[in-house]
Amino acid sequence: MATLDRAECENRDLSDPLREFRYEFLLPEDVIYLDGNSLGARPKGAAERARAVIEDEWGTGLIRSWNTAGWFELPVTLGEKISGLIGGGAGTTVVTDSTSINLFKAASAALKLQAADAPERRVILTQRENFPSDIYMLQGLADQLGDGYEVRLVDDTEVTAGFPNTLTDEVALVVLTHVNYRTGRLFDLESTTAAVHAAGALVIWDLCHSAGALDIDLAGAGADMAVGCTYKFLNGGPGSPAFIWVSEAHQDRFAQPLSGWWSHENPFEMSPEYAPAAGSRRYLTGTQGILSMSVAELGLDIFGRVDMAAVRAKSLDLSDTFIELVDTRLSHHPIEVVTPREHEHRGSQVSIAHPEGFAVMSALIERGIIGDYREPSVLRFGLTPLYIGFAEVWDTVEALRDILDNRLWDAPQHKVRGAVT
Amino acid sequence: MATLDRAECENRDLSDPLREFRYEFLLPEDVIYLDGNSLGARPKGAAERARAVIEDEWGTGLIRSWNTAGWFELPVTLGEKISGLIGGGAGTTVVTDSTSINLFKAASAALKLQAADAPERRVILTQRENFPSDIYMLQGLADQLGDGYEVRLVDDTEVTAGFPNTLTDEVALVVLTHVNYRTGRLFDLESTTAAVHAAGALVIWDLCHSAGALDIDLAGAGADMAVGCTYKFLNGGPGSPAFIWVSEAHQDRFAQPLSGWWSHENPFEMSPEYAPAAGSRRYLTGTQGILSMSVAELGLDIFGRVDMAAVRAKSLDLSDTFIELVDTRLSHHPIEVVTPREHEHRGSQVSIAHPEGFAVMSALIERGIIGDYREPSVLRFGLTPLYIGFAEVWDTVEALRDILDNRLWDAPQHKVRGAVT
Repeated sequence: MATLDRAECENRDLSDPLREFRYEFLLPEDVIYLDGNSLGARPKGAAERARAVIEDEWGTGLIRSWNTAGWFELPVTLGEKISGLIGGGAGTTVVTDSTSINLFKAASAALKLQAADAPERRVILTQRENFPSDIYMLQGLADQLGDGYEVRLVDDTEVTAGFPNTLTDEVALVVLTHVNYRTGRLFDLESTTAAVHAAGALVIWDLCHSAGALDIDLAGAGADMAVGCTYKFLNGGPGSPAFIWVSEAHQDRFAQPLSGWWSHENPFEMSPEYAPAAGSRRYLTGTQGILSMSVAELGLDIFGRVDMAAVRAKSLDLSDTFIELVDTRLSHHPIEVVTPREHEHRGSQVSIAHPEGFAVMSALIERGIIGDYREPSVLRFGLTPLYIGFAEVWDTVEALRDILDNRLWDAPQHKVRGAVT
Repeated sequence: MATLDRAECENRDLSDPLREFRYEFLLPEDVIYLDGNSLGARPKGAAERARAVIEDEWGTGLIRSWNTAGWFELPVTLGEKISGLIGGGAGTTVVTDSTSINLFKAASAALKLQAADAPERRVILTQRENFPSDIYMLQGLADQLGDGYEVRLVDDTEVTAGFPNTLTDEVALVVLTHVNYRTGRLFDLESTTAAVHAAGALVIWDLCHSAGALDIDLAGAGADMAVGCTYKFLNGGPGSPAFIWVSEAHQDRFAQPLSGWWSHENPFEMSPEYAPAAGSRRYLTGTQGILSMSVAELGLDIFGRVDMAAVRAKSLDLSDTFIELVDTRLSHHPIEVVTPREHEHRGSQVSIAHPEGFAVMSALIERGIIGDYREPSVLRFGLTPLYIGFAEVWDTVEALRDILDNRLWDAPQHKVRGAVT
């Protein structure tokens, strides 16, 4: 095996089959961007797409563009493109609203299915370390339902072990993040889904940190529902709309309380009687932000030309490289690699803990190496295979070494809130 | 009084104090745009704003822009601007999500207040002719709550009369559109709110068809909550985000089930325990589409320089003119003016019914005069005082006369769905 130095990293870049995709994105020249797991990079052509939507579709087409420019169909149009990346199958996915709101819809619908089939089940399980908004939404739903509905939090180890202690016959629904936003731990879609089903519960997966980074097969795993966002690995733009997937098996019985007119079978009849649309439109609610959605399509279109197995392979190569460099070049510092070392438990990021994590990340950012920080003491580096290379991983670890060896973190800091996980 | 002819209409345009605002918008030269009550016109600078957000904030600022470009604060920043137009008061309004979703939040919170104060009240009243999505959302909420919650539909005449028959002591909440989307009928904010309160119920107003067109004083009227959109009279762009207002009196007790992390008092602590933010942030849920929201700010900024009393006065002048021309120049056709003739019952549109309404509107649109059609047989003309003038009203009615006199509506039609009311 070649010595792992910068030349070897450059070699790996040269033989990278995804190398050309780097040129689909515009990034500042003086930046190494390792926060694409929080906000993806800007695809080429995004400003031009926005200009066309504003000048041609809105400005000239005006109200007519709801039909002529396909605005009304965008949630389905984009949903079909996402479906191809997550193994959803045709007609099962829409892009709409936020992840939190889509989770509320999915969890409401799942509990309604269980209320019909197994009414004594009233517990929702989710990871204590799930992204907090998911927990808050489930709590809000349980509070609204009353009648004994409750949310129980479980440790990641319990999930990985197949729920030996918590998946009782009280459990109606399990809501799981596919990849932990902070640690980067990956949970196995297929075996976990099987464990949940064996216990008589339904499962909703949150793919925020895996869609666009992993080769996902929701239908193959037999999952029930899923939600996720488009602004991380899918490069949809800041706060671009989220997605919701429902398995074909549940689609016809899917009933959600946020039943606005975009989910109506005949929205333009303006009937006071609600009747849900057939197919994936029934997951919609109200009118969608067309500008954000139109620009998000650019990011998805890039993925239409990508082999997700190649993305996953490169992601693991990048994180293997990162971890090896931390092990070999930073071993004299009090650093812990938080992200699991086993491929089957690793998403597409490397998180490391250091007692001065916040200050160290601030110093890195001062140098144009942008990762982010999560409490407590975690430096988080997102590895986005379409636009990050091996030499950049080398340079990042070298910058870390310089900062740590020379205690360069006492410089003025800015607070990196990273509003989007 | 001068004879009402085109010259007189031109005179009215010359003496219009809002005339200069026409130049704040870019409209195609060959179009008379009377659908600004469905999708407002494009403000100058919208494409440039989108370019700056994409190239500078997203492209260069990347994740840092959540702080440095004020992205995280946009819901509050824009909310304060709307608040000034609706008499909301500082710190009471946010821009977020869709109108339907905001109505779900407000209605959930209002019913929760009543459940504490008057638990026997479980009926939601709303107009049978309310925009259907509002009805669907309330139905979805009532179904989810169960326990005897129900939605009852009332006629507009019942509302205008002060609810002589329906506002019983079973009623917890009344949800009212301020202006009927189809007929243009306006409901009096102050007296109706007082009638609802006198009966022990709370009221939520839907301002979709009045915000930006009428001089509104929510706090002065003592209203409880309100929702509305920014893409009609506020010119925010297709599907731009909606707003929600809660009176100061209810703010501290406002609790909603869509309690995502953007409503948390300390979202970046990533605590698994939910605690609502103080102030208007507690009406938020998840991450917002920054591109759509940033462009929507342009439309709001124009209103920062507008006197809403002057807007209302011109709106009534425009609709008076329209109705007078229909009465005098189209009286030989089977046309009914659907919009109320009394100023106190009229919003900012003129709706007329004709048996061939759909075909006639299609013929108008073929000529570049864009209104829209609503079942059954209603031609709808939105009158947006910032960019529509009196000569355009004249030309519209003349085109109608030509089409009707010469039966020119048998030309090929396109279906104008007008996806946004």
